[in-house]
Amino acid sequence: MIDLRSDTVTQPTAAMRQAMANAEVGDAVIDVDPTVDRLERLTAELLGKEAAVYMPSGSMTNQIALRIHCKPGDEFLCEVGCHVYNYEQAAFAQLSGIATHTLEGEYGVLTPEQFHDGLIRPENDHMVRTRLVCLENTHNRGAGKVQPYEYVEKICRWAHAAGLQTHLDGARLFNAVAATGVSLADWGKHFDTVSVCFSKGLGAPVGSCLAGPADMMREARRHRKLFGGGMRQAGIIAAGALYGLQHNRERLTEDHEHAQMLANAVQNTAGLSLTPETVDTNIIIFRVDPRIGTAAQFVSHLKEAGVAMMAISAQAVRAVTHLDVNRPQIEAAAATLKKLGS
Amino acid sequence: MIDLRSDTVTQPTAAMRQAMANAEVGDAVIDVDPTVDRLERLTAELLGKEAAVYMPSGSMTNQIALRIHCKPGDEFLCEVGCHVYNYEQAAFAQLSGIATHTLEGEYGVLTPEQFHDGLIRPENDHMVRTRLVCLENTHNRGAGKVQPYEYVEKICRWAHAAGLQTHLDGARLFNAVAATGVSLADWGKHFDTVSVCFSKGLGAPVGSCLAGPADMMREARRHRKLFGGGMRQAGIIAAGALYGLQHNRERLTEDHEHAQMLANAVQNTAGLSLTPETVDTNIIIFRVDPRIGTAAQFVSHLKEAGVAMMAISAQAVRAVTHLDVNRPQIEAAAATLKKLGS
Amino acid sequence: MIDLRSDTVTQPTAAMRQAMANAEVGDAVIDVDPTVDRLERLTAELLGKEAAVYMPSGSMTNQIALRIHCKPGDEFLCEVGCHVYNYEQAAFAQLSGIATHTLEGEYGVLTPEQFHDGLIRPENDHMVRTRLVCLENTHNRGAGKVQPYEYVEKICRWAHAAGLQTHLDGARLFNAVAATGVSLADWGKHFDTVSVCFSKGLGAPVGSCLAGPADMMREARRHRKLFGGGMRQAGIIAAGALYGLQHNRERLTEDHEHAQMLANAVQNTAGLSLTPETVDTNIIIFRVDPRIGTAAQFVSHLKEAGVAMMAISAQAVRAVTHLDVNRPQIEAAAATLKKLGS
Amino acid sequence: MIDLRSDTVTQPTAAMRQAMANAEVGDAVIDVDPTVDRLERLTAELLGKEAAVYMPSGSMTNQIALRIHCKPGDEFLCEVGCHVYNYEQAAFAQLSGIATHTLEGEYGVLTPEQFHDGLIRPENDHMVRTRLVCLENTHNRGAGKVQPYEYVEKICRWAHAAGLQTHLDGARLFNAVAATGVSLADWGKHFDTVSVCFSKGLGAPVGSCLAGPADMMREARRHRKLFGGGMRQAGIIAAGALYGLQHNRERLTEDHEHAQMLANAVQNTAGLSLTPETVDTNIIIFRVDPRIGTAAQFVSHLKEAGVAMMAISAQAVRAVTHLDVNRPQIEAAAATLKKLGS
Repeated sequence: MIDLRSDTVTQPTAAMRQAMANAEVGDAVIDVDPTVDRLERLTAELLGKEAAVYMPSGSMTNQIALRIHCKPGDEFLCEVGCHVYNYEQAAFAQLSGIATHTLEGEYGVLTPEQFHDGLIRPENDHMVRTRLVCLENTHNRGAGKVQPYEYVEKICRWAHAAGLQTHLDGARLFNAVAATGVSLADWGKHFDTVSVCFSKGLGAPVGSCLAGPADMMREARRHRKLFGGGMRQAGIIAAGALYGLQHNRERLTEDHEHAQMLANAVQNTAGLSLTPETVDTNIIIFRVDPRIGTAAQFVSHLKEAGVAMMAISAQAVRAVTHLDVNRPQIEAAAATLKKLGS
Repeated sequence: MIDLRSDTVTQPTAAMRQAMANAEVGDAVIDVDPTVDRLERLTAELLGKEAAVYMPSGSMTNQIALRIHCKPGDEFLCEVGCHVYNYEQAAFAQLSGIATHTLEGEYGVLTPEQFHDGLIRPENDHMVRTRLVCLENTHNRGAGKVQPYEYVEKICRWAHAAGLQTHLDGARLFNAVAATGVSLADWGKHFDTVSVCFSKGLGAPVGSCLAGPADMMREARRHRKLFGGGMRQAGIIAAGALYGLQHNRERLTEDHEHAQMLANAVQNTAGLSLTPETVDTNIIIFRVDPRIGTAAQFVSHLKEAGVAMMAISAQAVRAVTHLDVNRPQIEAAAATLKKLGS
Repeated sequence: MIDLRSDTVTQPTAAMRQAMANAEVGDAVIDVDPTVDRLERLTAELLGKEAAVYMPSGSMTNQIALRIHCKPGDEFLCEVGCHVYNYEQAAFAQLSGIATHTLEGEYGVLTPEQFHDGLIRPENDHMVRTRLVCLENTHNRGAGKVQPYEYVEKICRWAHAAGLQTHLDGARLFNAVAATGVSLADWGKHFDTVSVCFSKGLGAPVGSCLAGPADMMREARRHRKLFGGGMRQAGIIAAGALYGLQHNRERLTEDHEHAQMLANAVQNTAGLSLTPETVDTNIIIFRVDPRIGTAAQFVSHLKEAGVAMMAISAQAVRAVTHLDVNRPQIEAAAATLKKLGS
Repeated sequence: MIDLRSDTVTQPTAAMRQAMANAEVGDAVIDVDPTVDRLERLTAELLGKEAAVYMPSGSMTNQIALRIHCKPGDEFLCEVGCHVYNYEQAAFAQLSGIATHTLEGEYGVLTPEQFHDGLIRPENDHMVRTRLVCLENTHNRGAGKVQPYEYVEKICRWAHAAGLQTHLDGARLFNAVAATGVSLADWGKHFDTVSVCFSKGLGAPVGSCLAGPADMMREARRHRKLFGGGMRQAGIIAAGALYGLQHNRERLTEDHEHAQMLANAVQNTAGLSLTPETVDTNIIIFRVDPRIGTAAQFVSHLKEAGVAMMAISAQAVRAVTHLDVNRPQIEAAAATLKKLGS
């Protein structure tokens, strides 16, 4: 099966497995695990932050970031299709008592014009307190769209001037770096806290890091314990994350080329249409013409032909490229798309 | 001062004060307070519900309604400008762990077309569970707009068919009744729970009722205690609410005529413009042309001239008519508007 | 019926009703209600605090006090039988995410020896943070026991030295004052915040005040809104509270004499025994010998004889004296106790 | 260093590392990870439960168990020194709005006599609802005490008869099995849910399982996602847990013998005394006579002599035996204890 459902399905490579098998470990709860420590230091350094904290998932890094920025009764601004609002069970409300104000972007991209002082709640006993802007880059539901750098710059400048904090859900920030050449630190410097994920494009089995100021990361560590994310000899999986961070960032451009090849196939197929029409990184979303059938039916036919993609709405299908799918497989998948979509 | 800032500023009349002074009372926490009981029964009856519960505020009735409809990690749909989302400190998130999905109405009015199955989250561990539609009628921020009856009917039918519950924030439902002739029970029958407020148009000093099925009201009573809304000899203030409910509903049409008179004045004044252009009930919102100055400046000039209104944004002013402002005062206020706005 | 179930059952007197009927009121949410303001100022002054906030119930004043002293993940120390832990639906946990550490007192009285640094959690990511000591005076479940003044002094001194805050649930603090002669301000000065109730011994229909530093009371006002405790023309009921505060404090000694008379009757009745053996204020608890029957049965017989008391466990009965029960009624109740208990 | 601070400090063995390096894995969030699946099935089978869910920590398994048994405003009964109450940041209150009622055991052991219907709150709007009994076996703060089997049986029978659910924090249940010969399934059958930990005596790097009825485990899986415990190719660490579960249960008796050897040394040393005097499993706690110095000082001297233990209060020290400390090392540690404690 050519599995293009998500870039989270990757298997650790032999070399990554070796790194995990040989990892130097310690009890990270009562001591320091040296491999976790190395991973946290490298992540912080790359993002230009004072410190980082390793956690079992990106949901945990994001939701703990929201929790340390906001108290119960605070509110954050985010794009309506973003991951923290839609795919993390609203832990911000459920566990942390935080409210949201959603803005609608075009394929997940928010423009600086959308941010203005009217979004800041006045100090008033009737109202929540606006505290934070949360962006996602690249944007998952926006088909891997990169937030334009100058937008990010302006939005964050506005936010800080307005007394707000900023958090970046950078689950796929490594893809944004590969697509734009803008460094992790340059993206990161506009945000008080940044979350990155090792189990997507980097191919590691488990984990994410939250990076930011030392005092906030101290607090994040406390909240990680609260959420049940304190792991003992976590160096085993941190070794996989570290390996991915050290070896698999450059090659993401290859995934992007592959996504472009799939996009070309879609564009040359009568019954399929790209939404949006351009592909920035490793995700493509396309619409299945109802004449061909529903997205679910199309995905089912793809599966029979040995290609796994994901139906994400009645007529939309998502495909994500990653290190476990090579060029010949992409060519085969492209050919299958053309065949089934005509 | 002709006080048009809100219909909550009314002073209890002599007759209402008399009713309160003579109220038959009991300890509502360990027994039943007979006046509270009468108020709850009459409210339930008028709204066509099995039971009602008296509480110290409309924020409490609304937020307890949300809490008994939704568990932590559930989500409700509402209009982005509505009271429960904006002016109750997001208690739904802060105290109850509930998330929101906001829809944008035109002056607070949502159309049936905006409700479709795509709004219902699929059952999936990543996502909250969609539980409830919450409407507001009349809509405060929408300048007292009445939700069209056939819209309400269709939206609630869709909601129930989709397995959702429905709650009506009817803080000013009495105004919607006066404006349309549709009865409380007819409005109420589309909703599982309805909240109404006695300290707005009805002129009572304190309190709101939540009405609905007997078992839900039993649970609401428990949550009222939790929120600290259990009051002992509450019959004193319930007597004022009961008086208002019995005597002050019919006369709301007078407030509506008064609002129309103010609207006419605005429409005939160069520097002012109504938004929206029609007035449904007792609230008008108008825009102050920047040539005249800001809303705050205009309100300040009004105040010097003996008329109190409320600046609600940089250029918008709100006026609300009520039983403490009579026709001559409205005529005076209209004349002042014309004079200052020209 | 001679109703000795609770001192909350009192009916407002004619004079108090008159005060309420004539109360000067305003919209306390958008302006200031002058009567509420007078009540808050007088309460603050009597307790020696900068400010006070009027709320619809003692549960609300206590739970908001806990909420402004403690954040989610903080812990407070309290007596295991106290009101905030047992009779307020654990709102501290349910709404505010706060944990408790309970200590066992003798009839609700905690001694200074029970407080030591071992109770303060070390700073450690595994543990909550200890923030507050909460005392109750007089102690409801402890049969109206007064906390000895020198205990209160020592416990609060220890707490402040240990970096903790202190809150007093003074629902019946007026009784402690009447019983000891120690002033409200002298009791109050040991606590950062104090809650007092007007609808118990003072005979008012509704309400409590939380008093403390101005900045905390500002925050308490915000949380009152959050809990739905913002009331419009609350001056109506505040007038009753103010009347009680001004006229009914002195007479509490009479209630205490009455409780003593009931206690004497119990002590002279074979089948009944006082627990504890001394009566400090207006509450007595006595044990019904199983030979006589259960507490519920005894209460039922009392009721038939025209005396209402409350069964609070299998064999225990509680009686509370108050301004609606006069000396002849107490004598009658005492006679009934003797008759039924022999 | 002979590290006896905790049985969580163990390093994975070469064979366990090999098992992890070779683990068959999958994306556990969108598919099933086959190794995680095997671990969950084996754990459920051993505990006699329908299903189990693997999570990154014992804090997460316990707190999710509490969360699926209790709603906000519910209460659970537990021993005052237990782990869920003391060392998990009161997540039950902080994240889930749940209250506690603590009972005091002797070295963590609760007797059936301590459980009676007076502990069940009556249905009443003032009170929380009692829902659950939570026991810990072996008891960490109770120096590894085994809860007597017949106590567990009686307490759980009482609980179920009273309509309560039961949860077992079995972080060290494998030690209770090794010490008593009572099987996992026999311990487990008295509890609705059981949590076990693989990173203590079993020597695995990371993780715990919660086991129970299939529908509850379905809900637990949802809450794991909420808490951020959803891990992708978690089979890597699950393989270590599975290896420990398959290979390291029998050998726990060796750890118990080692603890006994340390206990003997303590008993034969003038300045040290065992508390309690008997050792059930792999934990000993002993008191340092103040003549010798404080616990912290004693631990510091031990450390200089190459033995790491943990000061857990002013005069108490804890030592825990585990698979990374062999007999000669235990003999050396025992000798050091005698030398420094005389």
